[in-house]
Amino acid sequence: MSMTELKSKPPVITLTTDFGTQDWFVGVMKGVIAGIHPSAQIIDITHSITPGSIREGAFVCKQSYPWFPDGTIHLAVVDPGVGTSRKAIVLKTSKGYCVGPDNGLFSWAFSEDQVEVVYEILPERLNRNISDTFHGRDLFAPAAAMLARGEDLSKWTLPIQTFFQVNWPSPEICPHLIKGEILHIDRFGNMITNLPAHEIKDISDCFTLRNETPAQDERVGLYPTYGKAPTGKRSLIAGSTGYLEWAIPNGNAAQASGWQVGDTFLLSNEQT
Amino acid sequence: MSMTELKSKPPVITLTTDFGTQDWFVGVMKGVIAGIHPSAQIIDITHSITPGSIREGAFVCKQSYPWFPDGTIHLAVVDPGVGTSRKAIVLKTSKGYCVGPDNGLFSWAFSEDQVEVVYEILPERLNRNISDTFHGRDLFAPAAAMLARGEDLSKWTLPIQTFFQVNWPSPEICPHLIKGEILHIDRFGNMITNLPAHEIKDISDCFTLRNETPAQDERVGLYPTYGKAPTGKRSLIAGSTGYLEWAIPNGNAAQASGWQVGDTFLLSNEQT
Amino acid sequence: MSMTELKSKPPVITLTTDFGTQDWFVGVMKGVIAGIHPSAQIIDITHSITPGSIREGAFVCKQSYPWFPDGTIHLAVVDPGVGTSRKAIVLKTSKGYCVGPDNGLFSWAFSEDQVEVVYEILPERLNRNISDTFHGRDLFAPAAAMLARGEDLSKWTLPIQTFFQVNWPSPEICPHLIKGEILHIDRFGNMITNLPAHEIKDISDCFTLRNETPAQDERVGLYPTYGKAPTGKRSLIAGSTGYLEWAIPNGNAAQASGWQVGDTFLLSNEQT
Repeated sequence: MSMTELKSKPPVITLTTDFGTQDWFVGVMKGVIAGIHPSAQIIDITHSITPGSIREGAFVCKQSYPWFPDGTIHLAVVDPGVGTSRKAIVLKTSKGYCVGPDNGLFSWAFSEDQVEVVYEILPERLNRNISDTFHGRDLFAPAAAMLARGEDLSKWTLPIQTFFQVNWPSPEICPHLIKGEILHIDRFGNMITNLPAHEIKDISDCFTLRNETPAQDERVGLYPTYGKAPTGKRSLIAGSTGYLEWAIPNGNAAQASGWQVGDTFLLSNEQT
Repeated sequence: MSMTELKSKPPVITLTTDFGTQDWFVGVMKGVIAGIHPSAQIIDITHSITPGSIREGAFVCKQSYPWFPDGTIHLAVVDPGVGTSRKAIVLKTSKGYCVGPDNGLFSWAFSEDQVEVVYEILPERLNRNISDTFHGRDLFAPAAAMLARGEDLSKWTLPIQTFFQVNWPSPEICPHLIKGEILHIDRFGNMITNLPAHEIKDISDCFTLRNETPAQDERVGLYPTYGKAPTGKRSLIAGSTGYLEWAIPNGNAAQASGWQVGDTFLLSNEQT
Repeated sequence: MSMTELKSKPPVITLTTDFGTQDWFVGVMKGVIAGIHPSAQIIDITHSITPGSIREGAFVCKQSYPWFPDGTIHLAVVDPGVGTSRKAIVLKTSKGYCVGPDNGLFSWAFSEDQVEVVYEILPERLNRNISDTFHGRDLFAPAAAMLARGEDLSKWTLPIQTFFQVNWPSPEICPHLIKGEILHIDRFGNMITNLPAHEIKDISDCFTLRNETPAQDERVGLYPTYGKAPTGKRSLIAGSTGYLEWAIPNGNAAQASGWQVGDTFLLSNEQT
C-alpha cells in the first residue's frame, strides 16, 4: 500500500473498554476524538469487559486486532490503576498503533517482534486538563486522536524500553493428558479454552473429560462446527478463535457446566 | 436519484445479528469491512436477537429495513446452521441488497415482487480463509463489503431460483373473534402482535380479552398512543410498527402479563 | 474556526435515548438520518436511560455535551409524553443545537445564557408521516438530519420564548452538615452525588456519614482517585464529573450500600 493510498483512507480507531454503554463514558471519548480529528472512523470492539479484568481485555484484543486493516489505532482502557503511577503508553507495531494503560492489556495481541517501539505518553505535553479518574476521556482518547491526525509523537511521548506483560496461560499437553483453562465465555455460553485447535486435532478427536469422581468421567468429541456436534451434549469445537471451545449446540455450555473464566479441566485420550 | 448522486454517497451497511456486544464478534466484522471498503458507513440495527431465533431476526429486519435509504446493504447473521449445508445468499431487491444465511431471515422484510434476483455466494471465490463457525466475519462481512465496493457479483456468486422462507404468522380475524400472537417484546415490555392496526381499527375500539376462565375476561381499549391509555391497565396501542401492541403506560406489559413471544390471545368484540 | 473549516467537517449528531439497543429503534433513527444527510457522523451517548426517566437523561446530557466539538447537534429522546400535547423543540446554543421533546431533558446541559433561541418544531412542515408513538424516528431524527444538512429552520419551526425546565437538586451545605443526593449510579456501582467537588474539598477531607442510628455513624475519607482509596471501604472520590461520588475500589458501592438514585445522605464534619 502506498503512502498516498494510506493517507486517502480515514484512519480507524478501535475502542475496547470496561466502561459499559449505560453511562456517557464511551460517548464522551468519541466526542473528544471527533473534536481533535473529525474524520477518524471509530469502531467499537466491546465495552463489556468485566470491570478491571485486564486478562479478559487482553484476550479480546488478541482475538480482534488481527482483523483490522493496517494503520489501525487500537485504543483500549481497562484501567483499575487510573490515577496511580502506572504509565500511559503507545505501542508502534508492524500493523499500526495501540494506546492505553501500561498494565498488560496489549500483552497477547502482538508478539514481541511485532512491537517496534514503546512510547510513554507525557500527560503534561497534551496540554489538557486531566482528571485523576477518567483517563479514557482526558488522556487516551486525545492521544489516539492525535495519532490519527498524524501529530508528531516526539512532542508528547518518550521512547521507553519495555512495557508491562501478563503471562499467557499455556496449557499442559502431555502424551495422554491435557490440562486446559477457560479463557473466555461468550454470549452463547461457549467456553473458549487455551488449547490451540491445530495442535489438539492431530492427537485425537475423542477424549475423556476427567471429572472429580472417575465414575462421572465423560466421553467428549471434537467437531468442526456447532451444527455437526450432537444436540444437548457438551462437545469440543474447533472454534473461530484458533482455540478449542466447549459448546452445547443450541444450548449454553457455561450455564450447563457451571464453569467460570479461569477454571481448569483435564482431558485424557487413553483407552479406558 | 441519478447514478452520480448515488456514487457520491458513502454506501450504508446495516448489521443485524445475535452476536451480542459483549464479545469481539461484531467489532471484527466491522474491521473486516473497513479493510475491504473503508468508506462504507456501518449502522447497527441490533445484535441482541435471541441466539438462533430466525423468526425474531426476521421481524427485526421487517421493521427496520424500510427506513434505510435506497442502495443500503443489509447484512444479517442469525445462523444456527453455520458450517452445515445451508447456503449463503445475496438478495438484490428494489431497494438495495441483503446478505446473510439462507434460512428465512429475510422472509418478511421484502415482498416477493420486491426481490429481483437471488444469488448464492460461492465461498471459495472470495479467496479468504473461511472458518466453520464464524461466517459473519469470514464470509458475510467480506461479501457485504465487496458489494459496497461495487465488485462484480458474477465473479463470486451464482444466480439461483429461490430462497428459504419462513411463514408469516397471520392472525385469524373472524367477525366477532380475533386470534392474535405475540411477535416481539420490546425494551419497554410492550408486546407487539401480528394484528395489523389499520384492519382492527375499523372493527371496534373496545374488545374483551378472553382469559382462561370467562369470569376473568377483561375489557380492553384501543388507543393511538401510550400517553392516552389509562395508567396501570393493559391496553392495545396502534404502535409505530403498523401492528397493535399490548402496553401498560409507565409500566411493563410483558412482565405484568407473563406472556412470551409466540403466545396467542383471543379478543372478542361481541356485546357480553 | 472559520466558516469554511466548519463546513468541511462532517457534522456530528449525538444520540441519547431510553430506547435500549435490543430492538430496532435506534437503528431506524440512524437509517432515517442517513437517508436525509448521509455524511452526518452519528455518535451514541447512551440508549440505556431508565425508561421514561427525564432526570436521568438530563444528567447524562449535562455530563456529555461539553465534550463534543462546536456545531454538534444533540438529539435526545426520553419521551414518556410522546403523542400528547408536549412540544418538540430545537435549542440553538452557543455550542450547537439540541433536538428533542420539551420536557426538561436539556435543562441541565446548558445554562440559561448559553441558550440563544428556542424553536418549536412544526411537525406538519416536515412533510412526513408521523406516528403517534415513535417521534424519535418520525420527527426528531428528521429534524436533526435537516439541521445537519443546513436546512433553513424558519421553514419548519417557530421561535418561542421558553422551554420546560426541571429543577437542579442543589445540595444543602451548612457549616457542619451537608445533605447530598445520589444523582446517578454508573456501571461500576459508583454513586455520583450532587456535591460539587471543588466546594467540598475546601471544607474537609474527612467526614462522618450519619446513618439511621448514631452508633452506626461511619468515618469516610475523600480521595482524588479510586486507586488511592482504602480497599473494601466506602469512600468519597472527586470524580471526573466534577461531583463527589461514593465508590468502593474494586467493589460496587451501590450494591454494598443498597442506595438508589434519588436517595439522600447526611455528612457532618464536626469533631465527634
